[in-house]
Order: sequence, then C-alpha cells, then structure tokens
Amino acid sequence: MREGRGKLFVISGPSGAGKGTIVKRVVADRGAERTALSISATTRAPRTGEVDGESYFFLTREDFLRRVDEGGFLEHAEVYGNFYGTPRSYVEDRLDQGMDVILEIDIQGAMNVKRSCPDGVFIFIVPPSMEVLRSRLTGRGTDAQDVVELRLSKAREELTHVKDYDYCVVNGDLEEAVAETEAIFTAEHARVDEEVRKLIQENY
Amino acid sequence: MREGRGKLFVISGPSGAGKGTIVKRVVADRGAERTALSISATTRAPRTGEVDGESYFFLTREDFLRRVDEGGFLEHAEVYGNFYGTPRSYVEDRLDQGMDVILEIDIQGAMNVKRSCPDGVFIFIVPPSMEVLRSRLTGRGTDAQDVVELRLSKAREELTHVKDYDYCVVNGDLEEAVAETEAIFTAEHARVDEEVRKLIQENY
Repeated sequence: MREGRGKLFVISGPSGAGKGTIVKRVVADRGAERTALSISATTRAPRTGEVDGESYFFLTREDFLRRVDEGGFLEHAEVYGNFYGTPRSYVEDRLDQGMDVILEIDIQGAMNVKRSCPDGVFIFIVPPSMEVLRSRLTGRGTDAQDVVELRLSKAREELTHVKDYDYCVVNGDLEEAVAETEAIFTAEHARVDEEVRKLIQENY
Repeated sequence: MREGRGKLFVISGPSGAGKGTIVKRVVADRGAERTALSISATTRAPRTGEVDGESYFFLTREDFLRRVDEGGFLEHAEVYGNFYGTPRSYVEDRLDQGMDVILEIDIQGAMNVKRSCPDGVFIFIVPPSMEVLRSRLTGRGTDAQDVVELRLSKAREELTHVKDYDYCVVNGDLEEAVAETEAIFTAEHARVDEEVRKLIQENY
C-alpha cells in the first residue's frame, strides 16, 4: 500500500549487537532516496575525520540549548557533560517527503521518541547470545577486559528493555538479520492505519 | 527470533483480489513443512474432483453439529443451507508443532476467529482498483454480467472492512504482493510478544 508520508524506524540494541552494520545495509538495499539515516546533533568537539552534517551536526552549547527551548529536538540527553539530540526538522522534513527515517539511538532516547512519536516502529537488535557478544567485544581489540565486562553488564541490563520495542531481531547471521529488518520495513508499509483506510475509501 | 509455537495468519479479500494465488505461493515459497493451509469442513456434497481431506473435510450434518456443540470449530457459518467451519484441532495441532497456519476465509469468518484468536495476524488482500477487479472478474468468462456486477458491489462493501485487519496488501503486481505477504510473515515472527520476552530473559 503506497502512502504519502514516510515512517519512522527507531533502532536500538546493546553495543556489539551489530545495529550499525544492519542499518547501513538497510539504507543501501532500500536506497538512500527512500530511506534516510537521521544525523544527531551534539555539543562535543569533532574527532579526527568527523565531518559536520555527516557524522553529526556539531553545535555550540548555546545553539543546542536554544534549539531545545524551541522544541527543535525529538529527544535529547546530556552524556558526560555533552549534549546529544535528534533534530526534529531533519526527521520531519524527510517523513513529509515520503521518505522513511531511521534513528539509531540508545534506549533512553528511543523511549523519549516513543512519547513524541507513538506511530514510530521500534526495533531492538540483539546478539544471538551473551557468549557471542563477549567474543565480538573482545575481538574488536579496542577495549580493555574491564571495559568489556562493563559493556556486557550494561548489555544484560539493556536486554530487559526488549519489552518496550515492537520487534526484536537476533543478529546471529548478518544476512538473515538484514532480511528480517527489511521485512519489518516492508510489512509496516502494509499495516492498516488511518492513511490506508482513507486511500481505500477514496479510491474504490 | 525463533519461537516454539507457530502463528495464525488469517487472509481475506474480495473475490478476484487473488488471495488464493498469493496463499499458494506463500506456502510453496516458505515450505509446506512450516506453513500449513487450513482445510475447512463442510456439509455440502463433494463436487467432481474434490477429495475429502484435501479440498474440504466432508461431514454429515449430524457430525458437523455435534462438533459445533463440542467446540470443535474456530468459526462456522451456514451459507445457503450448508455449514462451513474451520476445525479447531487441525489448526491448533499444527500451531503446537511450531508450524504457521493460514486460514483463507471470508470476512465474517475472520471476525469470528479474531474473537477466539486475538493473537492471529489478519491480512486483507485488495485489487489495485475497481476497474482492475471488474476486468479480472469479466476475464474469467465464467460469470454473466449481472453476476459480475453483484460481485463488484459485494467487493465494494467488503473493502470497508479493511479497518478490521492488521495489514492490507494491494495485489496489482503478483510478485510484489507475494513478497509483501511473505515480509509480513517474517516480520510477525520478529514481533516482541510474551514468548520473546521469556526467551530473552532465559537465554541472556
């Protein structure tokens, strides 16, 4: 059922679940012209190689807080003294153009978006097991053992929030996880909502 | 997310929407070992070529009514003096074995199933337009013009019931409609329900 407005897909999951890889594949497979990945705004300084408007929108603290006051973010949070937020207009403009928008954000952010966008589709990506997650985090080689333990214990806590999501995709086999995520996008476009009811009423 | 129990998919749509073709393709593509098409019971006499236990389960009126009393049908109805029903055990046994079960039934039957199986997934198949439906019904060459008009007017009434379904698949291009229907099956298996919550709790 083709519809006028795009849909908002919010994707979360523990560090190491592979959500970044899945999201990139979904955008590539469905095409960037109909699936946009939202870009966050932040007050933290750009790291080497990060480009404004690609990695993040880099804002001054003053700009960020002014936009908060203006209702310019779908959600925002302060993490270790830096602000992060999802720019409302970036998302809304693309939805209005009929594009789907993906937000890859943490659970707290996702739950805030749920309050402002209850029509969003909430997808949780999980590793096939804690053992696999451990070996993925260890395999990265970037984190010390105690950091890995911290991430694992955080992941265990995060997994209890699966109940707040609409869908849960297990990322054991990447191809399967991508196919499942893309099936969710396709199915959600066939979902009966007010727009579909109107289309049927007007066209038949 | 693999789960223990199968899921029930209820598929309806106006005559000429092509639901029979789509259902056969879904069973063939997903495999008959994991997707079963439910077989109705009826008290009407078998027509030439119809095989008991394939086309229908053919029952005597007495048998049928006894099974109604025993709660043996998920839904049943009398049409032009004959009874039709969906055998509960046929469906439940397959769901318990982890198979998905498809019921291809009319709207009245679907709404009765919704009452007894609120966890079912309800899919409505529609033609891309009334003009296409008219040409499909005329093209069959089996119905006189007044019968075609009757079917069209019934289809128009039936389309108002799309609101009672979870999904609406437009069958303009058959391959697209099949892919969409299969995506709905895949997505529904990733849906977070009590079983998924338990699996996550127990396995991580």
